[in-house]
Amino acid sequence: MKVCAFAGGVGGAKLAAGLQDVLPPGDLTVVVNTADDFDLWGLHICPDLDTVMYTLAGISNPETGWGLAGESFDALSMLERYGEETWFKLGDRDLATHILRTSRLRSAETLTEVTAALSGSLGVESTILPMSDDPVSTVLETPEGRLEFQEYFVRRAQRDEVLGVELRGIESTRPTGAVLAAISRADTLVFCPSNPVVSVGPILAVPGIREALASSSAPKVAVSPIVGGRALKGPADRMLSSLGHEVSATGVAKMYVGLLDGMVVDRIDEEERAGIEDLGMRVLVTESVMRDAEDRARLASETLEFGAGMVAR
Amino acid sequence: MKVCAFAGGVGGAKLAAGLQDVLPPGDLTVVVNTADDFDLWGLHICPDLDTVMYTLAGISNPETGWGLAGESFDALSMLERYGEETWFKLGDRDLATHILRTSRLRSAETLTEVTAALSGSLGVESTILPMSDDPVSTVLETPEGRLEFQEYFVRRAQRDEVLGVELRGIESTRPTGAVLAAISRADTLVFCPSNPVVSVGPILAVPGIREALASSSAPKVAVSPIVGGRALKGPADRMLSSLGHEVSATGVAKMYVGLLDGMVVDRIDEEERAGIEDLGMRVLVTESVMRDAEDRARLASETLEFGAGMVAR
Repeated sequence: MKVCAFAGGVGGAKLAAGLQDVLPPGDLTVVVNTADDFDLWGLHICPDLDTVMYTLAGISNPETGWGLAGESFDALSMLERYGEETWFKLGDRDLATHILRTSRLRSAETLTEVTAALSGSLGVESTILPMSDDPVSTVLETPEGRLEFQEYFVRRAQRDEVLGVELRGIESTRPTGAVLAAISRADTLVFCPSNPVVSVGPILAVPGIREALASSSAPKVAVSPIVGGRALKGPADRMLSSLGHEVSATGVAKMYVGLLDGMVVDRIDEEERAGIEDLGMRVLVTESVMRDAEDRARLASETLEFGAGMVAR
Repeated sequence: MKVCAFAGGVGGAKLAAGLQDVLPPGDLTVVVNTADDFDLWGLHICPDLDTVMYTLAGISNPETGWGLAGESFDALSMLERYGEETWFKLGDRDLATHILRTSRLRSAETLTEVTAALSGSLGVESTILPMSDDPVSTVLETPEGRLEFQEYFVRRAQRDEVLGVELRGIESTRPTGAVLAAISRADTLVFCPSNPVVSVGPILAVPGIREALASSSAPKVAVSPIVGGRALKGPADRMLSSLGHEVSATGVAKMYVGLLDGMVVDRIDEEERAGIEDLGMRVLVTESVMRDAEDRARLASETLEFGAGMVAR
């Protein structure tokens, strides 16, 4: 039962962890957004890859969902003493990841290779793949002007209205052989509850990924990141709204029309079932909020059964 | 009273701190060995510059003499988890120094500029100068083969017999304008008690430095790093011996013949006075072991008075 999941940061990592828990070791591949990767003091930082990696390794910070549990911030305090801006909260152990990744990338390893080595060292049995080895950067158009993604997301705490999204460099990216292989051999394709604009959106925008998905006959299901008209984490709700989308599970479904076979929505959104079915998708209504490991595993199981049911039909 | 001191690591940093304590703010310039600089995980590390900088900033580890007081090692433990070799003990706050230095060097700042910025941020009022902005690497010939300096010094804990020293790249280095200016305007030139082979040696081997020293009429005095036939810190004693030098204050004096006007030796080596004077140098016999800040300041004062006395004569 090979599963290929698509994920951004915290919410996506949670469902990925649930999938890892319920699948045989090695059966899960997670394709992760890299469009919010950036460089800080010459270190190459991949926030979503790291969130997924730390979560699947069981060492992520359960309070924040990102970063490492029990992290210290001594290097950052020293950088502050040197007069540097320290709004991006780099922990000491997290820094080791960025230092090693940057060093290996400079030695001409690909991001795919580096990610495999790092996650392997942390004991992760699933395969974590960057969406591409080629760089992309997300730039947001706001009333304050154009903002780099981390500037918007971390430094300005997502307070700006997003009027447009540019995925700079996306047209020159190519999906890796590993991503294409993971999609083609998957028995189920799962779109995690990540931001459809800036997390799943960039993955789908890598030239060739939509074609690969279209070539696969495996069921394609998404878990809605919008529950009761709100994003459980992050600015997806406000972003959908300011970009002219409906802020609901149905709104998310509309963004995935032609791509997905089914949507998993929360009980609170049960009344949206008919509308989503009218878009040509099947709907599973269940508890979709993941508060703990048990929730994650149950939602993962139900999502996989939901997909498997489509094949059986 | 402008003083220009020449230093390597721990011992040199101690006397530099003493000089800083007894001189008016800004009157001290320390020219520091950079021949044991090296790259680790793509980070540019300057052990001697950092030891001098941390010591002059009053934040060095008093137990070891190098590194920072109260340092943590979380990044290093994570690097170890990633399967990396961690014999070079990089602390978390120390890492901030290397990250920032590397980033600024990549932005085309010189090591001289970066060092000024970092030490300024730490509140150091003295000027700390790398001996050159050009790279040099010290390679040691040993019975086990050729070893990079830090490999010998840290990883193998200086256990190998040193049969030869190569300062790779030294012939292509140039002294910076800042170093030449510091030498030419100094009222006293002080050679700190650092290893004459691998700390002071590389500074003197930068083409142009000996000529600049020869052009200066300021008194030139050294404090012997060998006391009672032993190095107070580090492998200088065994290194002098295996390289065919006499392991004594006299042996050090012989290496500086033609360069120095005077040597400061410890009371325990009083009997060497006549022999050193026969080499054409004046000798000051005093307590030269620096156990605390008081010792450092007293030795610094006495060394400066010793130099001043030569001018008065």
